[in-house]
Parts: sequence; structure tokens; C-alpha cells
Amino acid sequence: MTDMGWPAVEIVNPGGTGAAALICEHASAFIPPDLRDLGIAPEHRRSHAVWDIGARDMGCRLAARLDAPLVACGLSRLVYDCNRPPDAPDAIPAQSEVVRVPGNEGLSAADRAARCRAAHDPFHAGVSALLDARRDWQALVTLHSFTPVYRGRRRDLDIGFLHDADDRLARAVLARAGAAGRYRVALNEPYDMSDGVTYSLRKHGGARGLPNVMIEVRNDLIATPAGAQALADHLQQILVPALAGLGGDG
Amino acid sequence: MTDMGWPAVEIVNPGGTGAAALICEHASAFIPPDLRDLGIAPEHRRSHAVWDIGARDMGCRLAARLDAPLVACGLSRLVYDCNRPPDAPDAIPAQSEVVRVPGNEGLSAADRAARCRAAHDPFHAGVSALLDARRDWQALVTLHSFTPVYRGRRRDLDIGFLHDADDRLARAVLARAGAAGRYRVALNEPYDMSDGVTYSLRKHGGARGLPNVMIEVRNDLIATPAGAQALADHLQQILVPALAGLGGDG
Repeated sequence: MTDMGWPAVEIVNPGGTGAAALICEHASAFIPPDLRDLGIAPEHRRSHAVWDIGARDMGCRLAARLDAPLVACGLSRLVYDCNRPPDAPDAIPAQSEVVRVPGNEGLSAADRAARCRAAHDPFHAGVSALLDARRDWQALVTLHSFTPVYRGRRRDLDIGFLHDADDRLARAVLARAGAAGRYRVALNEPYDMSDGVTYSLRKHGGARGLPNVMIEVRNDLIATPAGAQALADHLQQILVPALAGLGGDG
Repeated sequence: MTDMGWPAVEIVNPGGTGAAALICEHASAFIPPDLRDLGIAPEHRRSHAVWDIGARDMGCRLAARLDAPLVACGLSRLVYDCNRPPDAPDAIPAQSEVVRVPGNEGLSAADRAARCRAAHDPFHAGVSALLDARRDWQALVTLHSFTPVYRGRRRDLDIGFLHDADDRLARAVLARAGAAGRYRVALNEPYDMSDGVTYSLRKHGGARGLPNVMIEVRNDLIATPAGAQALADHLQQILVPALAGLGGDG
């Protein structure tokens, strides 16, 4: 591990015996002090550009409900976006929608490799170690949040369910959420796999033949503890029967 | 695991290869919503009664510096104090210095057993699993913080090093800290083993013959990120040579 001042990976509820493994690539707003906020303006320091607001909070609550382990990244996605492969240009973005990131401009290959070693490698090693430790996993679920307004347009969506090549779990949870009728839901919104957002799903779920889904929640719904709890409860209610319907015991 | 709405244990930097295992029993201020803040007054909700202010923050930074895993409890010590055995009256305190805890008054034996299953058991299982997974540990270090003013008296101390039966590591780090001359330090202050605060050290360190120490930092020193970083850096500087002096390679 390269010391960035904060560990790149944590496992919440490591002894959980539930059927699903949870991950959260954008859990943290931590930027190592040496990187001096990567030069971003103070008003953006806790914004969606830096982390997925509410995702870790919701994830911990869902981990408790499902008795599932949760692997979370400890470093900001601006240090390295753990849901991107090392060769992706946007793994270390110099521009994030409205936020310019001066500290990520003009990095050398060695700079990029050091970021990758400090964040990508230990985070994905942690996910691999967790998945390799048991043979009875039924699903991999990655938890994200999206910004309500993107490029000036308000998004007409509460929760998106995204898939890579294997669409079984995404379609199953979408059906349950649709039937519940509580939230506005959609398949492959506000992004889809063509945006390059299914790296972790493919790397850890697809490669193992493990049903998998990326869940994107609008971040204003989970910005408070009560909101995060309500969404965690909802996700439990749709994931458990969806997993059972795929042939597991939920 | 009993679902308290939040996992009872997390492991930060689980793949760390450093020589020390870190633990933090009082890392979290989380009280399950169903327990309604245990009836404590709002002004005490984020106080020392509920958690060790700054201890988890400092612990994560020290984990990064030492490449050490850190096992942290996810629930408030008022739910269950994981540094106390199940039969200790103060494991679920109804009174904490100046704070009355109505939600902990008059609990039945079944209530107490449920709290123990929800917090003590998974936390200590997590510590045991970590320690059992490697044979080359050189030390167990538990990280705490104390309140600057106790029962009306200001404490004239920055850092205390506490030991149970095995005093090797406590005396070694005290010597290094004393030589550094940066902080006011003491052995077995502001508590000692007669106060019943060395449960985790004895259970996991003493039982394995593993050198161990409890480090207590005055919480106003680590209440900010910069303060937590400064103390983490200092603890790295004294722990590494202290461990080397005990016969390890630091």
C-alpha cells in the first residue's frame, strides 16, 4: 500500500453472512493533505464531484439489514475513480462536469501509476479477497448516488438499476421496485454501460458468473440519516425477493 | 449478527501488512434510531459520553502510516461498551460521568444479552478473526481519547499509555514519547487496569502473549483532521522504534 494518509479500503461488517456482497467505490471525500484539495474550489469540496453523497451511509445501513459485508473505498474519486480501469482517461479526471480539478492536470505516467497503486489496487484487492473467501455468494451490488441536476437539467429519476453483460439482477430488482411503486425507477439510467461505469461489475461479478447490479440513487434522497435509512430499507425489500427469484434463498 | 441498523464492526485497511493490529472500541457515535438516543439530552449527543472523539479519525491515519489494519466498532459505547466484559455493570452504563442515560436504566437480562450479541460479540469476533489470520503480529494497540475535564478537574496530560499484565510495549512507547519531549505523557493515566479498562488488551493481547498497549489521547488534541494527523504521525514515530526495540523489525 502507498500511504496517502488514509487507507484506501475498509470492510464494514466483514463477518456478515448474507448472500450479497456490497461495494461502494465513491464512498469517501478524503483527499490526502499533500494533494491540497487537488486545487478545487472550497464550495465544491463536499460536492458530488468529490464523492457519492450519502452512498456510504446508505450502504452501511443496507449492510446491517442484509447482514452483508460492504467494501468501501477510503479515498475520493478525484484521487482515483475506483470504478474505472487504469487505462481510462477519466480514472483521474481533470474536469468533472462543472468542476475543474487542477491537481489532476498534466500528470505524468508515473503520477498516474502511483495513484492507481494507492487506490485502485488495494480497493480491488479487497473486493477480490472478500469474494474469494466464500463460495456461496449470490450477488454483487455496487452502491452509488447521482446528482439531481446534471448539465443544467433536473433528472426525472429516483433510482437507476444498471447492468453490464449480465442483466438478471438489474431486471429483477427493477421489477420489484416498479411493483412497489414508491420511487421513480429505470433501467440503465442516468448512465449505462456505454459510459464506462460497469468496470467493477464486470471485473468482479461478470468474471465470476455472479449476478450483479449497480444501484444509483439520487443523492438528495440520501443526504440525511433518515433518508439513507429509508432507501436502505427499500433496497432490502426489493433485493431479498429479487435474489430469491434468481434461484437463491435470499 | 443482530440488526441494530448499523454494522457493529468494520475493518479499515484489512489487507495491511504492518506489524501492529489496531483496534478502536469507542470509534462511533451511532445509536440505533429505535433506541431514540437512549434518552440522553441533545447537547450530549456528540459528547465523550457517546464515543471517543477523534479516535477513529486518528486511527485511520495511523493505520495508513503503519499499513496496519484497524478494527473499529460501529455502535456507540452507550449501546454496549466493547471494552468491557458482558458481566461488567458499566458495559451498558445508565450513568456516564455527567450524563444520565435513561435508555439504559432497568434493562432486563434479556435486554443486556441482546445488546451484547449485537455489539460485543461481532466486534470481538472481528478482532479475533484478524489476529488469527496472521502469525507474525508484533503488537496489539487500542486507541482511545479522554475528556480534558473530568468531574470538574482539568487533566494535566496529553497522552496516557496503559497496560494490563504485560507492560513491555506501554513502557517502550512511553520512553520514546518522553524522549521526544513533545507531549505530556504518563503511564497508566488517566485510568489504569484497576478501572477495568484493559478488557480488550487482556482478551486479545495477553491471551496470545502479544505485546499490547492502550493509548489514550486528550480529545481536544484530535478533534480536527489536522490534530488527528499530528497525533497519528507522533504515534507512528514512537511505535515503530518501540516495536523494533522489543525484538521485532518494526
